[in-house]
Amino acid sequence: MEMAIAEIITIGNEVVIGRTINTNASHIAWRLTSIGFMVKRIIAIRDDEEDIKQTIVDSIRKNPNLIVTSGGLGPTYDDKTLESIGNALNLGLEINQEALAMIKEKYSKKGLPLTEEREKMAYLPHGAMPVRNDEGIAPGVTFEYKGIQFLCTPGVPREMENVLENFILTHLKVKPNVFYYEESFTIKGVGESSLASVIKEIVKKYNLYVKSHPKGRELLDPELEIQIAGSSPSRDKIVDLVKSCRKELEEKIKEKFGVSPQ
Amino acid sequence: MEMAIAEIITIGNEVVIGRTINTNASHIAWRLTSIGFMVKRIIAIRDDEEDIKQTIVDSIRKNPNLIVTSGGLGPTYDDKTLESIGNALNLGLEINQEALAMIKEKYSKKGLPLTEEREKMAYLPHGAMPVRNDEGIAPGVTFEYKGIQFLCTPGVPREMENVLENFILTHLKVKPNVFYYEESFTIKGVGESSLASVIKEIVKKYNLYVKSHPKGRELLDPELEIQIAGSSPSRDKIVDLVKSCRKELEEKIKEKFGVSPQ
Repeated sequence: MEMAIAEIITIGNEVVIGRTINTNASHIAWRLTSIGFMVKRIIAIRDDEEDIKQTIVDSIRKNPNLIVTSGGLGPTYDDKTLESIGNALNLGLEINQEALAMIKEKYSKKGLPLTEEREKMAYLPHGAMPVRNDEGIAPGVTFEYKGIQFLCTPGVPREMENVLENFILTHLKVKPNVFYYEESFTIKGVGESSLASVIKEIVKKYNLYVKSHPKGRELLDPELEIQIAGSSPSRDKIVDLVKSCRKELEEKIKEKFGVSPQ
Repeated sequence: MEMAIAEIITIGNEVVIGRTINTNASHIAWRLTSIGFMVKRIIAIRDDEEDIKQTIVDSIRKNPNLIVTSGGLGPTYDDKTLESIGNALNLGLEINQEALAMIKEKYSKKGLPLTEEREKMAYLPHGAMPVRNDEGIAPGVTFEYKGIQFLCTPGVPREMENVLENFILTHLKVKPNVFYYEESFTIKGVGESSLASVIKEIVKKYNLYVKSHPKGRELLDPELEIQIAGSSPSRDKIVDLVKSCRKELEEKIKEKFGVSPQ
């Protein structure tokens, strides 16, 4: 069984200077993970044409199944995502009548004319299709290049989320054939370095993702959240495996440290 | 004047699956920006040795002045940052006596012995130095490779922040010779697409970073935060320039839309 691999590229100076926390990346990553993708990388870059082009080319070289971008689809001068992608892949940009109709309809409902800036949002890479955006103006954009499916979403979170859902519902071609499942629990009074060998042992046995997230201070008031997660083509199989692993780990912790999970 | 360029690499499955929002990346990015660095890329990857090695090699090819990593310095089996970097750069890992002394002291104060997992945190790439961590056990790590300064910080946010500050204070060799300054203001009742041409014009004149951040909905209740930012070798010059740009932009907005900034 082959994993479906995804990469996420978020575009916008505000993220890269640290002004805005990249919640878009987390949302996209979690949503893709939940439907069975393995997200390999999340990259945040500036609204710079050269940076966008180079990042797209780098990402294609990694040959994922899906590349999702967010940001840079709007009407302003620094919204350069589609232009940069079009140039990077020698697709160019051309006006897309379906996208133009979507945009025109939204503005005309408010009695607003199509200006140059508004029309800009209808220029898509050659061969691309618009993806409905029910929360804003700029449509999402999807196309395929060298067998990699692309989705470009707007940067405004509610618009990104809406476009992503519409894409998954209607356009997504790579359907991962795995189910992802996770459970987690908390233990107090045991430090991460003490638990390390126990986790190492259980990972060897189960081949699951088992991760201790420190919530307290290692020496002062240790508190750990333990996450157990995995994917499998069979939903029952992965649920059973995670539950068995959790049970065994909880028993080992109780036995070794006298601490019960919460 | 040459910009000092930085790249940020955060390592940890929890971020890449979207479970944890990458606040570490934002903190590092903002702190580096505030002292004059231009952060070009932020990359989040999994706790996977091959991924870490490839990312480090990719990042070195971009030839930044500084690469900051976070995550993967702890005592657990999946903390692979230093081992992966050591292997990627053919530096290997060796026990560092200064790091070992730091770790030993912290555990011995609590009457805890040095186990294999705890000692692991003292193995640094050849030629590296530990950076004090006043908030946890694993020291930060700094070294130079092909003229690029590296800083590896732990993944726990308060430890990362502490190590970053200690690094800036004591170890940072690339001192950017620019000052960064920004101001922002809010306007209501003007959509992003309406303001786009005004911003385009002012950017041409001032060559500053001027960005409209949509806070409301473009058509329903438009509200924009306008950020004006820039860097210069002269603090006075950049403050004056940002203030002039802001004044002119506010006047133009008032003139064109009858809206006063807030």
